[in-house]
Amino acid sequence: MKLGMIGLGKMGFNLALNLLNHGHEVVAHDMNRELIDDAAKQGAAAAYSLEELVSALEKPRIIWIMVPAGKALQSVVNSLTPLLDKGDIIIDGGNSHYKNSITLGEQLSSQGIQFFDVGTSGGVDGAEQGGCFMIGGDEAVFKHIEPLFRDIAVDNGYLYAGKQGSGHFLKMVHNGIEYGMMQSIAEGFELLDKSPFDYDFEHVAQVWSNGSVIRGWLMDLMQNAFSKDPKLDSIRGVMNSSGEGKWTVETALDLQANAPVIAMSLFMRYRSLEEDTFHGKVVAALRNEFGGHAVQATK
Amino acid sequence: MKLGMIGLGKMGFNLALNLLNHGHEVVAHDMNRELIDDAAKQGAAAAYSLEELVSALEKPRIIWIMVPAGKALQSVVNSLTPLLDKGDIIIDGGNSHYKNSITLGEQLSSQGIQFFDVGTSGGVDGAEQGGCFMIGGDEAVFKHIEPLFRDIAVDNGYLYAGKQGSGHFLKMVHNGIEYGMMQSIAEGFELLDKSPFDYDFEHVAQVWSNGSVIRGWLMDLMQNAFSKDPKLDSIRGVMNSSGEGKWTVETALDLQANAPVIAMSLFMRYRSLEEDTFHGKVVAALRNEFGGHAVQATK
Repeated sequence: MKLGMIGLGKMGFNLALNLLNHGHEVVAHDMNRELIDDAAKQGAAAAYSLEELVSALEKPRIIWIMVPAGKALQSVVNSLTPLLDKGDIIIDGGNSHYKNSITLGEQLSSQGIQFFDVGTSGGVDGAEQGGCFMIGGDEAVFKHIEPLFRDIAVDNGYLYAGKQGSGHFLKMVHNGIEYGMMQSIAEGFELLDKSPFDYDFEHVAQVWSNGSVIRGWLMDLMQNAFSKDPKLDSIRGVMNSSGEGKWTVETALDLQANAPVIAMSLFMRYRSLEEDTFHGKVVAALRNEFGGHAVQATK
Repeated sequence: MKLGMIGLGKMGFNLALNLLNHGHEVVAHDMNRELIDDAAKQGAAAAYSLEELVSALEKPRIIWIMVPAGKALQSVVNSLTPLLDKGDIIIDGGNSHYKNSITLGEQLSSQGIQFFDVGTSGGVDGAEQGGCFMIGGDEAVFKHIEPLFRDIAVDNGYLYAGKQGSGHFLKMVHNGIEYGMMQSIAEGFELLDKSPFDYDFEHVAQVWSNGSVIRGWLMDLMQNAFSKDPKLDSIRGVMNSSGEGKWTVETALDLQANAPVIAMSLFMRYRSLEEDTFHGKVVAALRNEFGGHAVQATK
């Protein structure tokens, strides 16, 4: 099939490669000309403007947008839609909030444009070698674009999840689960680190990756990390987050769903960003007030 | 190699099969004669008493004990050790507390008996088809019994973890991580269940099992479970536990290690065992006292 790819960052570029490797025609665009030229070297057709991209595609056009969620996405969509015709298809493969995907889907539907919200998992390697895709949108139209997903996903690695918003909701929850699983693994290794035993963490991750109940990709990645740095001495334990964990917890609150472990995993990330905490000062001050317990002075 | 297997429950029986399939000679004993006969039908040598078992083995004898941790294990060891000679080897493959393994190891060392504490993961299928083993004990003596583990583990599925106690400590932490991972997965599906979308949970588990970041054995098992019961309608959400999660949290307290997610996962299990809670009564009562908010009467 022929499609446009807008956004040639790590994910978009590797998805384009994946599509090209499966015999699809990719018309590639990015704000950065060099990335377009790089894609062209790999066999994509270069489009240095949205107009060029749209005119290079046949109706109904399929355009995959892989840009940061929020303003960048909305800006591309706003510039793109006046150039499109009824029946054209826009795929948002980024990490958009599912409520935005519902709103954007309604906006595009009113213009006769089909919209799919696609959650993508599996990292950069997955984008190139075979990823995992969670897809929301019109089911009948999905059949038309399904061959793309069949090609770029690993076996059984794509799902038509339901109406618009369901793809990004599923990806959001996937990431929330990921937060909890990562924190669980992390707490386990912290226990080993504080234990009276002298474990080789690379080999622990290896044995847990083979035959155990907790085996999986995250444990494979732990083994890789420990193989490079046996006690992770070179890494500070600062745990950033890119928003999907927060959205998961906010959504749990909206739905009155009980998600204490995912919430705690998020809070532990926030704690890791602080050198000192105000709650710590408060507890230390109160212990001092009622019991005369010593406080440490700020440095 | 030739070894004794004491305890022919699900795990012990399947481990015996696994050993037999790899050409080892197994002398099998259990308190239940029928299980001994079953093992004999599979090619094991029957031993209807500990004396028979000990006399059927050559020195240094290797005896794998696979009975419930605590009293059952201690009882077997107390009956067995007077029959053994210096240099004989006892393997405890059950879920013993690592502190008990350290104590038992010291007791047996004083009698000249080598002791290994072996944490076993991978379930009943793993025991038969290839499991995951975490082994504590004397490193030099371990080399003598290593061929057994090489045969019955999956590739890279056994680890000499360190001195006595380190095998069961590692297994305990493995199970603690398992609690957190399971609760994370569970909270994710609860969010999907309360979402405005109509997900097919079997297919969600399938797509998350293929190419996603959270893929692994637990997600494979989720797919199996949903394939049998699409919304788990036949199962009550009562989450029992068999002790290793509690030990992990107790150990975190002992070591002053931060394990809030594993602790919360354990507390959520306890909550699931109660129809009503006293803390719930307390909060409802206080809301009524200060704000006149309605309370529900007990049924």
